[in-house]
Amino acid sequence: MKKILVIHGPNLNLLGKREPEIYGKFCLEEINKKLKKLAKEKKVGVEILQSNHEGEIVDAIGSAPKKYDAIVINPAAYTHTSVAIRDAVASINIPVVEVHISNIYKREEFRHKSLVAGAATGQISGFGVNSYLLGIEAAIELVK
Amino acid sequence: MKKILVIHGPNLNLLGKREPEIYGKFCLEEINKKLKKLAKEKKVGVEILQSNHEGEIVDAIGSAPKKYDAIVINPAAYTHTSVAIRDAVASINIPVVEVHISNIYKREEFRHKSLVAGAATGQISGFGVNSYLLGIEAAIELVK
Amino acid sequence: MKKILVIHGPNLNLLGKREPEIYGKFCLEEINKKLKKLAKEKKVGVEILQSNHEGEIVDAIGSAPKKYDAIVINPAAYTHTSVAIRDAVASINIPVVEVHISNIYKREEFRHKSLVAGAATGQISGFGVNSYLLGIEAAIELVK
Amino acid sequence: MKKILVIHGPNLNLLGKREPEIYGKFCLEEINKKLKKLAKEKKVGVEILQSNHEGEIVDAIGSAPKKYDAIVINPAAYTHTSVAIRDAVASINIPVVEVHISNIYKREEFRHKSLVAGAATGQISGFGVNSYLLGIEAAIELVK
Amino acid sequence: MKKILVIHGPNLNLLGKREPEIYGKFCLEEINKKLKKLAKEKKVGVEILQSNHEGEIVDAIGSAPKKYDAIVINPAAYTHTSVAIRDAVASINIPVVEVHISNIYKREEFRHKSLVAGAATGQISGFGVNSYLLGIEAAIELVK
Amino acid sequence: MKKILVIHGPNLNLLGKREPEIYGKFCLEEINKKLKKLAKEKKVGVEILQSNHEGEIVDAIGSAPKKYDAIVINPAAYTHTSVAIRDAVASINIPVVEVHISNIYKREEFRHKSLVAGAATGQISGFGVNSYLLGIEAAIELVK
Amino acid sequence: MKKILVIHGPNLNLLGKREPEIYGKFCLEEINKKLKKLAKEKKVGVEILQSNHEGEIVDAIGSAPKKYDAIVINPAAYTHTSVAIRDAVASINIPVVEVHISNIYKREEFRHKSLVAGAATGQISGFGVNSYLLGIEAAIELVK
Amino acid sequence: MKKILVIHGPNLNLLGKREPEIYGKFCLEEINKKLKKLAKEKKVGVEILQSNHEGEIVDAIGSAPKKYDAIVINPAAYTHTSVAIRDAVASINIPVVEVHISNIYKREEFRHKSLVAGAATGQISGFGVNSYLLGIEAAIELVK
Amino acid sequence: MKKILVIHGPNLNLLGKREPEIYGKFCLEEINKKLKKLAKEKKVGVEILQSNHEGEIVDAIGSAPKKYDAIVINPAAYTHTSVAIRDAVASINIPVVEVHISNIYKREEFRHKSLVAGAATGQISGFGVNSYLLGIEAAIELVK
Amino acid sequence: MKKILVIHGPNLNLLGKREPEIYGKFCLEEINKKLKKLAKEKKVGVEILQSNHEGEIVDAIGSAPKKYDAIVINPAAYTHTSVAIRDAVASINIPVVEVHISNIYKREEFRHKSLVAGAATGQISGFGVNSYLLGIEAAIELVK
Amino acid sequence: MKKILVIHGPNLNLLGKREPEIYGKFCLEEINKKLKKLAKEKKVGVEILQSNHEGEIVDAIGSAPKKYDAIVINPAAYTHTSVAIRDAVASINIPVVEVHISNIYKREEFRHKSLVAGAATGQISGFGVNSYLLGIEAAIELVK
Amino acid sequence: MKKILVIHGPNLNLLGKREPEIYGKFCLEEINKKLKKLAKEKKVGVEILQSNHEGEIVDAIGSAPKKYDAIVINPAAYTHTSVAIRDAVASINIPVVEVHISNIYKREEFRHKSLVAGAATGQISGFGVNSYLLGIEAAIELVK
Repeated sequence: MKKILVIHGPNLNLLGKREPEIYGKFCLEEINKKLKKLAKEKKVGVEILQSNHEGEIVDAIGSAPKKYDAIVINPAAYTHTSVAIRDAVASINIPVVEVHISNIYKREEFRHKSLVAGAATGQISGFGVNSYLLGIEAAIELVK
Repeated sequence: MKKILVIHGPNLNLLGKREPEIYGKFCLEEINKKLKKLAKEKKVGVEILQSNHEGEIVDAIGSAPKKYDAIVINPAAYTHTSVAIRDAVASINIPVVEVHISNIYKREEFRHKSLVAGAATGQISGFGVNSYLLGIEAAIELVK
Repeated sequence: MKKILVIHGPNLNLLGKREPEIYGKFCLEEINKKLKKLAKEKKVGVEILQSNHEGEIVDAIGSAPKKYDAIVINPAAYTHTSVAIRDAVASINIPVVEVHISNIYKREEFRHKSLVAGAATGQISGFGVNSYLLGIEAAIELVK
Repeated sequence: MKKILVIHGPNLNLLGKREPEIYGKFCLEEINKKLKKLAKEKKVGVEILQSNHEGEIVDAIGSAPKKYDAIVINPAAYTHTSVAIRDAVASINIPVVEVHISNIYKREEFRHKSLVAGAATGQISGFGVNSYLLGIEAAIELVK
Repeated sequence: MKKILVIHGPNLNLLGKREPEIYGKFCLEEINKKLKKLAKEKKVGVEILQSNHEGEIVDAIGSAPKKYDAIVINPAAYTHTSVAIRDAVASINIPVVEVHISNIYKREEFRHKSLVAGAATGQISGFGVNSYLLGIEAAIELVK
Repeated sequence: MKKILVIHGPNLNLLGKREPEIYGKFCLEEINKKLKKLAKEKKVGVEILQSNHEGEIVDAIGSAPKKYDAIVINPAAYTHTSVAIRDAVASINIPVVEVHISNIYKREEFRHKSLVAGAATGQISGFGVNSYLLGIEAAIELVK
Repeated sequence: MKKILVIHGPNLNLLGKREPEIYGKFCLEEINKKLKKLAKEKKVGVEILQSNHEGEIVDAIGSAPKKYDAIVINPAAYTHTSVAIRDAVASINIPVVEVHISNIYKREEFRHKSLVAGAATGQISGFGVNSYLLGIEAAIELVK
Repeated sequence: MKKILVIHGPNLNLLGKREPEIYGKFCLEEINKKLKKLAKEKKVGVEILQSNHEGEIVDAIGSAPKKYDAIVINPAAYTHTSVAIRDAVASINIPVVEVHISNIYKREEFRHKSLVAGAATGQISGFGVNSYLLGIEAAIELVK
Repeated sequence: MKKILVIHGPNLNLLGKREPEIYGKFCLEEINKKLKKLAKEKKVGVEILQSNHEGEIVDAIGSAPKKYDAIVINPAAYTHTSVAIRDAVASINIPVVEVHISNIYKREEFRHKSLVAGAATGQISGFGVNSYLLGIEAAIELVK
Repeated sequence: MKKILVIHGPNLNLLGKREPEIYGKFCLEEINKKLKKLAKEKKVGVEILQSNHEGEIVDAIGSAPKKYDAIVINPAAYTHTSVAIRDAVASINIPVVEVHISNIYKREEFRHKSLVAGAATGQISGFGVNSYLLGIEAAIELVK
Repeated sequence: MKKILVIHGPNLNLLGKREPEIYGKFCLEEINKKLKKLAKEKKVGVEILQSNHEGEIVDAIGSAPKKYDAIVINPAAYTHTSVAIRDAVASINIPVVEVHISNIYKREEFRHKSLVAGAATGQISGFGVNSYLLGIEAAIELVK
Repeated sequence: MKKILVIHGPNLNLLGKREPEIYGKFCLEEINKKLKKLAKEKKVGVEILQSNHEGEIVDAIGSAPKKYDAIVINPAAYTHTSVAIRDAVASINIPVVEVHISNIYKREEFRHKSLVAGAATGQISGFGVNSYLLGIEAAIELVK
């Protein structure tokens, strides 16, 4: 069975409370339930990590190839500032799917530039919770 | 039955022949077949337009709401230069999913900026032919 | 009798439906009626073209001097991207009045730059439908 | 009877003498006469102020709502440098029409940016003396 | 007794009426009353100047050291455009505290840059009327 | 009793030793004593955190609303690079006061831009240790 | 016999009338005659297309390899704005020679950047009608 | 006898006290004495104006041709911000010599750009008080 | 005996596996062995830290002066994004040598700018593993 | 007989050895032979200079009109950095044809800007050795 | 007797012939005569060097302090491109006066930036031949 | 025996006298002695060239491979302006080590960009005379 690591970046622990007009009304636990339900249907394993720490996310990506076949990551704020996450993604040989809840290209100028996208396999942005579900599907297709 | 309009932008008629290391080995007819197969499975209608003419694409988007419930568009080169397509997308009330075969954020600097993304619902980029299929799924979810 | 060509650029066929908080509640037919009424009062001829195609607009401008004494043009989205329309305007010897329904300087940064303005005689922006009527008056004065 | 305040910005007292190939051969008195004649025809009151002092123009705009229904202003050089005039325009509730004798978009790069336009109702540029007359007509329409 | 000069920059005479969602509902007289009340409590003298004229503000700053021990200034629109006020601040040897009612870093891009801040002792921004009161306290501490 | 969380960002543990001509001769313990003394006088609770870890600061901000009524933060180096801290500040509903010991607008160009300021309530910069004390007073006023 | 497609971009139908101090006094028919005369001498076939429509030019380039051995193109205004033409040129395997009548590097700043040049084989600019003739010679050499 | 108007811009009334390491130890009166002494030697008339008000300087320049043969101006802070002074200089037909006490090209980046220089006859910068004396000599030569 | 702290920044734990065409085939342990061997030869102590966490690196630098005489640091991805590391380096009084395995000036534009270099003593870039060895030698010379 | 001066800029003495995938396999002597052969055919004189010294090239251009009717120059690296060569070209009255072996618009960003092109008659770029031969032909046409 | 070295930069040997509408009708010999005449009057020695070679100018500046008391230099094209000349000027301890015949601030954008000015004592620009004479006078004053 | 060419760029002949607070108190002869001493110890040959002439440096680099195994170059001012030196370095197949006495990343903005670094093997900056010695060691390692 293929295994996928899902990484939620900084402040996503606040989902539901955080600017719901942008990020929607679901809290992180509800999103995670949906992810696990889809994984079950699609017969893949899924493990989930949320961290506000850039270093922890870099650690997780660097050691992922030992245990996972693909990564689905919402780098959140670190999307725009972390060369370290970009380099971690570029350093490993499994596919990495970048997802965003909101359409980052409709927001402040500084959110239009993703440093991670230059190293990820592909990007899905703007479909709310569904961005994650499409990301899981994209990852499954990539590891076939 | 929900109906989706798929728009292929300029030079996509050359797929298969055109820089296959970037765009893959499938020709447009093969992609269209896959799109129709998926539509059938998902029980939605799909109509497909390819055009190299910015004006024709603007025409098609503007008149789409009369016949379609959603648009999946790969604006190709016009992604980066067409305010007219952006404005057409912003002028209508049905969801518009922007897709790209290649990861545009891994290519030349001028391809990193999508004018269309600022008006579209969301964007899927970098999964080859699968970008279109994920786009269809995203569109179906949006019109539910 | 002096004759004026009025050109409506891309997406103006959607007026009334399109973002009415920006472009107002009038549809294109109503605007055209007002233009013809004013033309009649002012005793000038007026012909009206709407096109979403940059090439058609370039064609129309290039051949205008044979039939018209002045042009009133709302280049809409092409205002900001079309060197071809700018060059067409610079290529002819009759006055060209650029008009905009909304105040383009109050909108997104990329709408603040008009490529056409560098070749047009003058510009009128921000008065809603009245921008067109003032444009007709400006054109009449210029061809006196 | 509606009353309109016309404000001439810096160096417009030198009109006629000042770079006539750009600003035309009329002196300010002649323009003012034309403005008064039009006001009479249109049955509106018009008062005229010329000042080279940014502060005086800010004072005049700030106190205008007590006496006037609209402002027609040619901010001249202050168009490009005065946030204070922009803020004054944004601070009041009567319409403000920005006019320019020359087409500022055909001149030096630094004249392409109007700080005032971001707060004004609309802008008329490039029609010589007629820019003022069209401005008066635009203002009348706005206060109807 | 220490004496402080408070300078209100352009358009602050319109407070209360001017964009109250940004600047609050207090008029300038009410703010001045609060300033005088605080000064009395803190046992310092306070004198207040409002001017829309850059030159008057430059004059006031340049001659302040003869009569005052510190300046609290809200340069308003001139914050972003006046090198003359910056130079005046740099030319004198008493502390100058820059204050802003609104948080200028949450507003238009052009308001993010303060020319005055590069010469002032410090800056307080975003606390409404309280920015002034904190400014007085900061000034008192500086002249101790 | 209202409670305020004070956050000291990276390298502030080195105060007193670190570039004293910029940051002053006080060490962090002395500043903290002053903060506690003021809190006592003003009858508010104060808790203090120093961290060099962006993730810890994001954690602290995200969980602050459960225990505190306001935050006073000196984001130090992260002021200029951390979208994660900006997003954390934007995600919570209690006031956040940004403070800086030095006047950041008098230093290197890259210190003139605060990413945090775009989400904070207000900013106080340049008054040495007193920036913190003014920040406490501003916070008290905001939670009244 | 080798065959060459010559493409004249937008507004070149107006040659002779259009800004003759920049583009010279020859009309398009005269240039075409010279091209055919040279082709005859050099024993190559030549076909000529003029279009103001970006989409038509993209169509022509994409289908050229079936009939032609090389393209000589003056993209005119589209030189500076058309990623679609650039991509069409990059999609085909026959040599493409870009030519310009005027020296585009002596004109407005926005004409200094050719999007097409990044995909074309080479560029010839500034020799008037002779740019086309040199372009034909360059193309012949390339297809030898 | 030729007459020269010398204009001292904002804050030059503070010379001697103002940042003497940049502007020298002379006060304005001493400089003026030197100017008058040189004028006498060279047998030209000289009149001197100091103003902190941009508008007054614009007034003075605009009316200068009636009484003076040349202007020597140190626009000080307005050098970098005043399009109004630039336009005034461009509006008159007598030579204008721009002078600066300090070498503006050795100072902050924003002082490297002179808006006035684009309209003045020439510029002398960096020779302390002697910049004015050289300016008088340059003016005399220009009006010969 | 002088003691040197060597800090390896983010993703350097992946050396050998990570993009070997850029970073070489040595893994971190092999590099560390070479460092220790050189230290022994040169009769200095060396301690080695690898961390993916910006905060840990800041902690280590801030507390280094208590135990070490110099630092050799490869800030890796944080080179380009960390003001916190720059400030930590500027806060201490022992020499800091910045090293890079690859020549960062031959890579992506965003890697050309080192924030750390502005505070470090010097920089060595592009010599593979040898960059570290040269860094140790440079550090030894600096602490003599 | 017309005489043409051909100038080869810096590092062109290394042709054949230097990056042959960019500059081709011909050495300079072979190119010069082709140039002389063409000159003979076309019945013009040709003289050839290679220099790595900007000053020698400036000298040669400045004195060329005494002996030559036209210049064909490949300024190589100086294309992008030499205002002196640009000014030399602008200072003389004979035609100057700029040529490049590689297509400079397909290479690093800093090679896209030619300072020389703004003064030269025209430019030929990207045809390998043939750029020189086309340059000779262009020059011959210009001096007819 | 004080001795002054006058350096004429590239292409100034072509004066009189070179763009006389910008540089005037005098040839270099005539200017040199005027310089010598003035030197004689002022009782200073003057030596004159013209070179098109950046290296020769650097050599001359570097060795000047042994023989001269001041330098008057017109760096011409090297003004805008030569860090080497700037560094040479910064390396010596005698005053250096930069002069320009034309007003460089009225010309192309790239001529507005002088690299030399950041190291020179002062600059005189725009007075034709008289710029040199004023430069000599400025130098004499500086070496008094 | 391996042979290394050391090139000292412009103004380095002035070392010791030139801004000693930046470049140190050693003159060039002393540095050269240290280089020769190290070369002897390391059993490599070393030859040294100092030149202020860009062209001479280009000549030396281009012909170096015939006699030397590596180059150590301090391009000094030409670091930031010479594409010719960059191209020379890129044209040869022996390693080139770029060295700087001062840390160029701590100085003026324009010194942060090295054009040479994009072609050199590696760069050593900021260690005073020791930069050269480390450069020799790096070169020896590269030619092993």
